Amino acid sequence: MDISLPAGFQWSALHCGIKPDANCADYVLVSCDAGTTGAGVYTRNRIFAAPVAWDRQRTPSADVRVVVINSGNANACTGQQGWQDVQAMAASAAAACQAQSEQALVMSTGIIGEYLPMEKILPAAGQAVAELGNDQDAFMAAASGILTTDQGPKVASTALEIDGQQVRLAGMAKGAGMIGPNMATMLAVVMTDATVGAEDLQVALRRAIEQSFNCISVEGHTSTNDTVLLLASGASGGSALSGEALEEFCQALDSVCVELAKQIPADGEGSSHLITIDVQGASSREEARQIAQTIANSNLVKAGVAGADPNWGRIISAVGYAGVEIDPDQVRVAINGVDLYQQGSPLAFDVAQVSASIADNVDTSIVVELNSGRAAARFWTSDLTADYVRFNSEFHT
Amino acid sequence: MDISLPAGFQWSALHCGIKPDANCADYVLVSCDAGTTGAGVYTRNRIFAAPVAWDRQRTPSADVRVVVINSGNANACTGQQGWQDVQAMAASAAAACQAQSEQALVMSTGIIGEYLPMEKILPAAGQAVAELGNDQDAFMAAASGILTTDQGPKVASTALEIDGQQVRLAGMAKGAGMIGPNMATMLAVVMTDATVGAEDLQVALRRAIEQSFNCISVEGHTSTNDTVLLLASGASGGSALSGEALEEFCQALDSVCVELAKQIPADGEGSSHLITIDVQGASSREEARQIAQTIANSNLVKAGVAGADPNWGRIISAVGYAGVEIDPDQVRVAINGVDLYQQGSPLAFDVAQVSASIADNVDTSIVVELNSGRAAARFWTSDLTADYVRFNSEFHT
Repeated sequence: MDISLPAGFQWSALHCGIKPDANCADYVLVSCDAGTTGAGVYTRNRIFAAPVAWDRQRTPSADVRVVVINSGNANACTGQQGWQDVQAMAASAAAACQAQSEQALVMSTGIIGEYLPMEKILPAAGQAVAELGNDQDAFMAAASGILTTDQGPKVASTALEIDGQQVRLAGMAKGAGMIGPNMATMLAVVMTDATVGAEDLQVALRRAIEQSFNCISVEGHTSTNDTVLLLASGASGGSALSGEALEEFCQALDSVCVELAKQIPADGEGSSHLITIDVQGASSREEARQIAQTIANSNLVKAGVAGADPNWGRIISAVGYAGVEIDPDQVRVAINGVDLYQQGSPLAFDVAQVSASIADNVDTSIVVELNSGRAAARFWTSDLTADYVRFNSEFHT
Repeated sequence: MDISLPAGFQWSALHCGIKPDANCADYVLVSCDAGTTGAGVYTRNRIFAAPVAWDRQRTPSADVRVVVINSGNANACTGQQGWQDVQAMAASAAAACQAQSEQALVMSTGIIGEYLPMEKILPAAGQAVAELGNDQDAFMAAASGILTTDQGPKVASTALEIDGQQVRLAGMAKGAGMIGPNMATMLAVVMTDATVGAEDLQVALRRAIEQSFNCISVEGHTSTNDTVLLLASGASGGSALSGEALEEFCQALDSVCVELAKQIPADGEGSSHLITIDVQGASSREEARQIAQTIANSNLVKAGVAGADPNWGRIISAVGYAGVEIDPDQVRVAINGVDLYQQGSPLAFDVAQVSASIADNVDTSIVVELNSGRAAARFWTSDLTADYVRFNSEFHT
């Protein structure tokens, strides 16, 4: 895998002792050159962790110098102590980078309701700065260091020319399409060497998330810690992007975010399929999205795919209870390109053939055509298997 | 079990050939004396079956003479043919009871997307009428005949004196707290010999359902066929109930509906716990209900209970993303009577003891106190086990 690494960033990862396995990194630094702008989008959960509160106060930012991330402990539901700890964690990382606390952003993921082991976290900053690197190994080490229950790192990147400048985007994400012991917290950092003003960066990130990280179903749970950060170093040179150049950047960002987001439901112990749900012909994108999300959150649909069952009934039922006005007689449902239901009645189809197309592929496509407008939405979800539940039942607090 | 059977009704059940097992009844009649009033509440799913469309047009009714129910085929997603079939099914049952089609209500449950085998259903009416009985055996045969994937019949009854008249209520329900192959369709018929006008009956049923059948979580799915009917024969004598007497009747109806509804999540192949969720101290009942429902639909919470894990983090997170404004610092969470979380921070508790209290009992209690008002809501759900998913993955269309 060849990653288009943006200039202006350095990465490092080490084991400071939060995770029991000494071979697993649990402390990650992303160091940014002076002048890096930053944007953030956070969980909508009303119970949110201290690092979310910290970052929210600081983004959009015209001046980010470091992002410090720990895995293994979410610093969530930790009250006033948690707030003091995130301040100290930011201060120690900033100091090691010769920056101010206000220039540091923080992300945490892991178990909730336990205080951070600050005696392990605070000393890690100095060593992490000493080990910073700007090559692919350093980037991948960081991408691995932010993981918890994930089966492997999730990265995506792209390079393009904008206004004659070579611009690169690279991102890393964390999260698994499973019933996660730590509630499948989703973290992502996308870095670019494009030059983008902080406010534009924030708008670009919101738009990208709307069709990527907000279109994956991880059990319907939005965790206490979900965070996506976007950092722009400006190291590619040139003045701040605007107009058509900014739009080109946004499209590249959209695709990187989609590539990252899809890897989350694709991961997950016991999960065997990545399901892509396309709802088309809706009156509005919001309605299309609502129906796609309802299908994506349906245990019935997810268990059906796990069993290679082309069960259009479960899909059409989810369409019906999504809370959107639809005309049942206009709806068409297809699985893996085969129409199964149309105009209020089932179609004759080769059950064995469609079942085999589900069983033999990791990717399953569900298309719902509403025939009532021109809006569409795409959602991704994992299937629901017995192994998947077993893993999460057996995890203990 | 001794059931307080209301006067004015007769029941029968037989095997007409929809289900493969000849020992399983799949055709049920409830015959009502002249003057029976009827009320109905139906699925909110926009994709609804032909029998739902039929009954909706006829309730509330001042004149119900027969309810005909088949199991094994839902007559859903069957288009114009399905509508013709429900008309013929009603007509045949009504004719056998010397009544008019308009006096017949219909319920169907089972697989969707297949046409009813009318050649088996139409001839069944005559035999079913010949076998009508008004004793407990007949009632229980009917209660068994409406089942599909249920592990056993679900009945509840009560008797009370209202205005000097002995009044009885008895109900039967169908539905399982599982990811059902036929989408866990929920059917119920509650019968009473109280004298209640049709409009009052409809109001009473709506109220009862709001705190019973609408407070159980069966995967969040509302099926194409969900139906609850309430029939009042007036055989207890007296004039139509009103004022305080009507309120007494409503309270008895509420309790019968709660008893029936609770049996649905308690049933379910592979499910091992009935979880009762009480949300208290909310600003409004609607907000309490929304939070309770969000917890009840959380796979994380459900899998945690299956694993006897006192995981307050999953509960507090669901509270947070329920879409209700709450003050996190005021929330208290208890499992099986033990406080686990309060004022934004976890409490010290004996994990092994709380875990044992979950493992050793079928019933699990989750209490969430919001401390922001005086409204409350109670919800019931089942846990989520690996067996439960396996069963539903292995079912094929």
